[in-house]
Amino acid sequence: MANKWDNTIDYVTGPDLWVTIGVAVLQIVLILVLTFVVNRLARRITSQFFENRRRGPFKITQRREATLKKLVMNTINYIVYFTAFIMILDTFSLDVGALLAGAGIAGLAIGFGAQNLVRDIITGFFIIFEDQFSVGDYVQASGVEGFVEEIGLRTSKIKSWTGEVHILPNGNISQVTNFSIHNSIAVVDVSIAYESNIERAEEVLHELMAELPDRYPDLVLTPELLGVQGLGSSDVVMRIIAETEPMQHWAVARAIRKEVKTRLDTEGIEIPFPRLVMYSRNDEEKVKEPVH
Amino acid sequence: MANKWDNTIDYVTGPDLWVTIGVAVLQIVLILVLTFVVNRLARRITSQFFENRRRGPFKITQRREATLKKLVMNTINYIVYFTAFIMILDTFSLDVGALLAGAGIAGLAIGFGAQNLVRDIITGFFIIFEDQFSVGDYVQASGVEGFVEEIGLRTSKIKSWTGEVHILPNGNISQVTNFSIHNSIAVVDVSIAYESNIERAEEVLHELMAELPDRYPDLVLTPELLGVQGLGSSDVVMRIIAETEPMQHWAVARAIRKEVKTRLDTEGIEIPFPRLVMYSRNDEEKVKEPVH
Amino acid sequence: MANKWDNTIDYVTGPDLWVTIGVAVLQIVLILVLTFVVNRLARRITSQFFENRRRGPFKITQRREATLKKLVMNTINYIVYFTAFIMILDTFSLDVGALLAGAGIAGLAIGFGAQNLVRDIITGFFIIFEDQFSVGDYVQASGVEGFVEEIGLRTSKIKSWTGEVHILPNGNISQVTNFSIHNSIAVVDVSIAYESNIERAEEVLHELMAELPDRYPDLVLTPELLGVQGLGSSDVVMRIIAETEPMQHWAVARAIRKEVKTRLDTEGIEIPFPRLVMYSRNDEEKVKEPVH
Amino acid sequence: MANKWDNTIDYVTGPDLWVTIGVAVLQIVLILVLTFVVNRLARRITSQFFENRRRGPFKITQRREATLKKLVMNTINYIVYFTAFIMILDTFSLDVGALLAGAGIAGLAIGFGAQNLVRDIITGFFIIFEDQFSVGDYVQASGVEGFVEEIGLRTSKIKSWTGEVHILPNGNISQVTNFSIHNSIAVVDVSIAYESNIERAEEVLHELMAELPDRYPDLVLTPELLGVQGLGSSDVVMRIIAETEPMQHWAVARAIRKEVKTRLDTEGIEIPFPRLVMYSRNDEEKVKEPVH
Amino acid sequence: MANKWDNTIDYVTGPDLWVTIGVAVLQIVLILVLTFVVNRLARRITSQFFENRRRGPFKITQRREATLKKLVMNTINYIVYFTAFIMILDTFSLDVGALLAGAGIAGLAIGFGAQNLVRDIITGFFIIFEDQFSVGDYVQASGVEGFVEEIGLRTSKIKSWTGEVHILPNGNISQVTNFSIHNSIAVVDVSIAYESNIERAEEVLHELMAELPDRYPDLVLTPELLGVQGLGSSDVVMRIIAETEPMQHWAVARAIRKEVKTRLDTEGIEIPFPRLVMYSRNDEEKVKEPVH
Amino acid sequence: MANKWDNTIDYVTGPDLWVTIGVAVLQIVLILVLTFVVNRLARRITSQFFENRRRGPFKITQRREATLKKLVMNTINYIVYFTAFIMILDTFSLDVGALLAGAGIAGLAIGFGAQNLVRDIITGFFIIFEDQFSVGDYVQASGVEGFVEEIGLRTSKIKSWTGEVHILPNGNISQVTNFSIHNSIAVVDVSIAYESNIERAEEVLHELMAELPDRYPDLVLTPELLGVQGLGSSDVVMRIIAETEPMQHWAVARAIRKEVKTRLDTEGIEIPFPRLVMYSRNDEEKVKEPVH
Amino acid sequence: MANKWDNTIDYVTGPDLWVTIGVAVLQIVLILVLTFVVNRLARRITSQFFENRRRGPFKITQRREATLKKLVMNTINYIVYFTAFIMILDTFSLDVGALLAGAGIAGLAIGFGAQNLVRDIITGFFIIFEDQFSVGDYVQASGVEGFVEEIGLRTSKIKSWTGEVHILPNGNISQVTNFSIHNSIAVVDVSIAYESNIERAEEVLHELMAELPDRYPDLVLTPELLGVQGLGSSDVVMRIIAETEPMQHWAVARAIRKEVKTRLDTEGIEIPFPRLVMYSRNDEEKVKEPVH
Repeated sequence: MANKWDNTIDYVTGPDLWVTIGVAVLQIVLILVLTFVVNRLARRITSQFFENRRRGPFKITQRREATLKKLVMNTINYIVYFTAFIMILDTFSLDVGALLAGAGIAGLAIGFGAQNLVRDIITGFFIIFEDQFSVGDYVQASGVEGFVEEIGLRTSKIKSWTGEVHILPNGNISQVTNFSIHNSIAVVDVSIAYESNIERAEEVLHELMAELPDRYPDLVLTPELLGVQGLGSSDVVMRIIAETEPMQHWAVARAIRKEVKTRLDTEGIEIPFPRLVMYSRNDEEKVKEPVH
Repeated sequence: MANKWDNTIDYVTGPDLWVTIGVAVLQIVLILVLTFVVNRLARRITSQFFENRRRGPFKITQRREATLKKLVMNTINYIVYFTAFIMILDTFSLDVGALLAGAGIAGLAIGFGAQNLVRDIITGFFIIFEDQFSVGDYVQASGVEGFVEEIGLRTSKIKSWTGEVHILPNGNISQVTNFSIHNSIAVVDVSIAYESNIERAEEVLHELMAELPDRYPDLVLTPELLGVQGLGSSDVVMRIIAETEPMQHWAVARAIRKEVKTRLDTEGIEIPFPRLVMYSRNDEEKVKEPVH
Repeated sequence: MANKWDNTIDYVTGPDLWVTIGVAVLQIVLILVLTFVVNRLARRITSQFFENRRRGPFKITQRREATLKKLVMNTINYIVYFTAFIMILDTFSLDVGALLAGAGIAGLAIGFGAQNLVRDIITGFFIIFEDQFSVGDYVQASGVEGFVEEIGLRTSKIKSWTGEVHILPNGNISQVTNFSIHNSIAVVDVSIAYESNIERAEEVLHELMAELPDRYPDLVLTPELLGVQGLGSSDVVMRIIAETEPMQHWAVARAIRKEVKTRLDTEGIEIPFPRLVMYSRNDEEKVKEPVH
Repeated sequence: MANKWDNTIDYVTGPDLWVTIGVAVLQIVLILVLTFVVNRLARRITSQFFENRRRGPFKITQRREATLKKLVMNTINYIVYFTAFIMILDTFSLDVGALLAGAGIAGLAIGFGAQNLVRDIITGFFIIFEDQFSVGDYVQASGVEGFVEEIGLRTSKIKSWTGEVHILPNGNISQVTNFSIHNSIAVVDVSIAYESNIERAEEVLHELMAELPDRYPDLVLTPELLGVQGLGSSDVVMRIIAETEPMQHWAVARAIRKEVKTRLDTEGIEIPFPRLVMYSRNDEEKVKEPVH
Repeated sequence: MANKWDNTIDYVTGPDLWVTIGVAVLQIVLILVLTFVVNRLARRITSQFFENRRRGPFKITQRREATLKKLVMNTINYIVYFTAFIMILDTFSLDVGALLAGAGIAGLAIGFGAQNLVRDIITGFFIIFEDQFSVGDYVQASGVEGFVEEIGLRTSKIKSWTGEVHILPNGNISQVTNFSIHNSIAVVDVSIAYESNIERAEEVLHELMAELPDRYPDLVLTPELLGVQGLGSSDVVMRIIAETEPMQHWAVARAIRKEVKTRLDTEGIEIPFPRLVMYSRNDEEKVKEPVH
Repeated sequence: MANKWDNTIDYVTGPDLWVTIGVAVLQIVLILVLTFVVNRLARRITSQFFENRRRGPFKITQRREATLKKLVMNTINYIVYFTAFIMILDTFSLDVGALLAGAGIAGLAIGFGAQNLVRDIITGFFIIFEDQFSVGDYVQASGVEGFVEEIGLRTSKIKSWTGEVHILPNGNISQVTNFSIHNSIAVVDVSIAYESNIERAEEVLHELMAELPDRYPDLVLTPELLGVQGLGSSDVVMRIIAETEPMQHWAVARAIRKEVKTRLDTEGIEIPFPRLVMYSRNDEEKVKEPVH
Repeated sequence: MANKWDNTIDYVTGPDLWVTIGVAVLQIVLILVLTFVVNRLARRITSQFFENRRRGPFKITQRREATLKKLVMNTINYIVYFTAFIMILDTFSLDVGALLAGAGIAGLAIGFGAQNLVRDIITGFFIIFEDQFSVGDYVQASGVEGFVEEIGLRTSKIKSWTGEVHILPNGNISQVTNFSIHNSIAVVDVSIAYESNIERAEEVLHELMAELPDRYPDLVLTPELLGVQGLGSSDVVMRIIAETEPMQHWAVARAIRKEVKTRLDTEGIEIPFPRLVMYSRNDEEKVKEPVH
């Protein structure tokens, strides 16, 4: 054992060690600089390519183009840095291929630990391939919703309307709701008092609905009054729906709410407050009654 | 080690590298163009085939046909592009078969990561084979509901009535509720005041129910008054059910609600507001009483 | 590499390819037609068999018979089409047996992905074998409830009373509640005012309960008044239970509710509204008091 | 390939096929009849054995006996039919042993799919062996509760008090609550008005508690008044607990509630309604005040 | 094939079969009797040992002793019956060792199915070894709470204070809360009216707290008035905490609640009811106002 | 077979068996005594070491020391008893190493069952190594919170402020919240009536805040009035935050609440009760109106 | 066996044992001291490097620099101590490499148990590589939110605004929400009475909004009045949104709330209290009516 220790000390104090370290450091620096240069170059070429393509004969939708540009850049990033990483490992004389094919405890742990990485890339590939959503779409996935900012090889970025950015590994996006493909429907529920005449209220609302498409260009069709959606405890609920341009349903619903409120006020149809029927009773009775 | 670096530099600066790259790029472009052409052709043939089939002797339901057409197109897409992908890998002299059969850490990770993909395809196959739902059906699955827009090999698309499209991997559809197979039932709960005469209310509602089938063609049968569904804190709840054409129960329920409200008003039967019996008490008492 | 490409082109343009394709297509069509015919035949024979069996000596319950007939048909479907599928694969010279026994990455992924399929069939087998439920039973499983429409090898269909059909893979049915085996119990909770005399209310209700079995044939026994189920904030809750024919408890409960409400009205026993004791206080006091 | 097809056609039209099929069908019918007879016999013997055992010297509790009888019958069922199943497979010259020991994709899928089956049997074995519950006990497990109807090798049946039967695979019963082993405790919470004298109320309730054991034989001990369980927003909550025979706590709690209500009425101690102190304020003030 | 059937019939009707069965039955009965006797003996010796140990020199806490006695008995049970089970399997010439070491589909399924069993035993071992809780402690684990009745090799039993017994496999006890190790803290929240003088209320409560330790021996320290825990919508909430003997906090909290209520009454400090400030408004105004 | 039985009987009745048992028992007792002695010794040395270390040159924080002492003792416990366990197994001639390296069904089950144990130890190691928390810190983990009492190799103990001890396997502590590292923030929300002048209320509160740091030494900075946190239905909510010594935020928040309440009372700024605007309406109208 | 015991005793009492122990202890102490020194050195060099870099030509954002410095220190920590750990194991002549490559039960358990460790490191790597968040960002992940304090190789630290530190293994951060990348949006909902004139209220609010950017520099744009967000039961809800500097939305929202409240007061536009329409009814009627 003493021998082992002597060797160690010789190795640490001898000149060979320092030369080896120096060469390795030099190689790594060289690789890093190269990586940096190649990455820059590749990104500029990509950017140029997408610029030129517009004048070319091939035709892709605008929406698809933004997605692809971001994706290509993201993928180049991964490939360049991954190659650099393998080259650096090589510097330390580690054979990566043999490592990955090896088994044993470490292999088991790494294999299990890395399965998420694989799932992310597979799912990401299918999101692009099946065109589930593009950059700029409003989507909901894995409990968050917002506009898609970037679709990458491993992660996607979704920007909520209140400004925060959600970064999701693609494997989390097992199920997507895309709001930007079809027209949206604005849904407005209006309460009418039980004392009101429903026929009259319907008439007034129908009239109003017919006027709206002129005033609001985001309305695709004349809004429709569906009818009595519910008989609440204090009110009769009428439902109005309106087809709008994609994602304009929130703005349109706000406008319809204001129009309906103003019109009902003008026509004297009451939007009811909660009601309560109250029976006043003599307290004395209570105490006495049960004792008979 | 110096030798290795010399080789690398020679390789990068020598002409062989550029020729190899040029050939590879050419091959890939050729494959991509071919892929594009074949895909177009296959889709047109499919489209044509479904057109002709209608005049042919085989008979499939309309609903089944829409599903199959979308599915076939979707499947062609996968097969064509997958073949192109394998051919491109081949260009880089990668033997895909050997790769897939290999084991080791990478294999473990990929095997686990890809199991979702396999499950999606298996489930998708059974959805078609067992005819669980077709394009156009209204279904509920994995927490979303809407009309089926497309059933694919790996994913299905469901369009909600408010316009958003839900894209689900078939593996998520472990359990489906299909609303379009049988007639639907509209359920309307009506509150009657405790002071009202139940017999009289039942009579009035029975009369009304008998009149409805004439007015609403979506009603399959005369709506039925089931009876006292609950004794609420302020109201007696009566339940009415009505069998309708599939998916017409929402519209019919709205119509019944309006009819019932108007009729009860005419007949003077009260739909009650929440009630409260109030005992007014002298506050002084409270403070004094406990001190005796 | 050039050689490979020449071969490919020769193969694509040569006549052999087209002959092979033609033969394969012919074989597949033949197999499909055969499959169709065999399937039809097998279903007719099964149907005939169940028809005849009724006049035969063997005796199975009616309920068991419906289940078996649907199951046999479903199973024939699977077997016939599965055989056809294997034969078609055979046409492409794929050895399915070797494929299934193979390992590697693909094997791992498929093995994991297919485990649900296996679990579905195992569970399905035990549902039939242990007679957990039959076609026509009202059951609850995996969050849905309704009448069983079909029990298949892989999936079962449950029809909800509002008309929608739930399609569940049998593996989801890990736990079943069957409502159709024993008599059901209707449970009715009635509120009595705190001021009422409980003894008197119990007497009245007992009397009423005794009259009910004559009027409602679905009642198996005279309903029972259990007693004071709860002392609510505004009411004393009395519970009535009634044993009924299987699945008749909803209808019976509605009937009992109506009977109880009418009887209590007649007898002048109050079903109470929510109560509140109100102390009116002088607001001035409040502002001043704390400043002493 | 043509050869293969000729063989197939020869095989289908030749007489050998029909003979083989005939023999196989005969064998299967024979096996089924035998299975049926053996199963009947075994069940009768079991039944007889349990009949005789009662006169024998061995002593098992009544409760344990019911469980064992049902279990033995259930187990015989499985063994007889499983043997028949193996024999039928044998008829088709399938070697089950080799099949089960085989590996590959199918093996992986089956192994994973069948693990639930194994877990069910292991858990079932321990339920019996550790006597966790017997037929007739009232238990809660896996979200359902009721009286145990049958404990089988793979599934157990629990009958809810409202009549439905829950069928649980034993593997779901990872945790059991058994209500039938020890005496139960009835818990009754009584509200007393804040204005009441607590000492007086406690006295009255103590007196009442002392009278109860004579009237209700299910009471094991005199019920105990624990004290002030909570100071609610409108009431002081007093808690009473009473030890009863197993599962009699619901009935006893109902009885105690009625007794307490009647006694408090007699003694003039108020069970309070919700209270509210109301300050009436001049609306004019509000609008003006903030503008100073 | 006919030969196989002949053999089977010969075997069934020949005398050898019956002799073999007879011998096997005899052996099994012998094993069972022996098992029964050995089990009885082992349990008596254990019981005796624990009896004697008390007079011996070794010292274990009382609480630890109850746990160990129950555990030893439970473990003997398992070992004796497991040995008997192996011996019976041996009777049928099944080599258990080889069976357990075998692989294949069955092995996979059993290995997965049995992992829970292994986890139960490992966790159970650590519960005892780390003295997480003993028989008689009040613990909470896996969603149930109560007094520990028995800690076994595979399952533990917890008895809830309302009488039901929870039987948990030890593997479910991944996290335990033990209430019996340290003193408990009783927490009482008292509402004081906003109109009250807080200083005065604090004074009164401090006085009361100082008197309590004499009256309630379970109190370890004088209860502490923490201060204003919250400013509710109608009340100022004061929090009192009191350190008590383990598990006496419920009883002590009840006592403190009563003492506080009585004292506040005596001192004229109000425990407030919910409050509401009401503005009465003229209904006419509402309808007209918006139309200006 | 008879031979086997004879052997068994010979073995049981022969003297060799008893000698072997005697020797084994003796060895086990010896091992146990040794274990006990070694354990005691190791614990005393550790204790001594930590005592001396304080006077030594090395410096660890007090907080780190308590953690390490408990951990070392806990680890010694495990090592000593584990060694004893291996030695006892050795007594029975079981080769543990070979056992652990073996495979088969049992190995699979044990490997899966023991993975939790491994995870616990790995996580525990990182908790210590990364100094996530120390003995005495107030932490929240796995749904429980309290002061850390002990960090062990496999489990940690957390003592809640109400006295109960939570025992968590380290593997459950996947995510920790440590309250003892930085200063805490006390958050107090105060309701102000809508009728109050907000500017005036802010002035009064700012004044009060400036006075507080002198009175409460736990306050690190002058509390800050953030502003209008919400516009409630009956009140304007103002938020005050105050930086305090770690874990003093509860006490400080209580003090601030009291100070604020008293000051607002003095200044005549109202803390509002819930408000309600009430419209009284004539009931007759309702019944008639709808019929026009 | 006796021999074995003699050997053991010889070994324990002989001098060789003590020499071996002494040498081992010496080696371990040496390794530990070396570890300590190397760690210190490495940290100082890193610190120096980041100091110098600022004057160098390379440019990284400030935010990225803080992250990298903490990460490098954290990584050095792991590498130095891990090397020391391997060297100590080496002292005990344990070959770690062989150990890790070994299989068997222990390997299975360790492989499964360590997969979390691997996942943590992989995820951590991608958080840094993809620049998902940096030290100082406000993020939400795995149910906690706060400012990032440190991103390590295995765990990250997030400091909540109330002072507590959340320590998360990187594997838990499967999905991140980053609030510090884009501007934030302050959302303020204001209630307006139904009696108010909406047009007038909108005018007043628009005027106010225009004044705000001058007063609050954190406002990036003039706040926007979106319109009628909802028609509540007692109020019309208007929504105002305002784009602010990142993370300033809470402060800005508070300011806007105060401004709006004050302005509406000045303009006499009512922020409404909850409303209720009350019908007083004669109690006598109720009791009599139903009996007609």
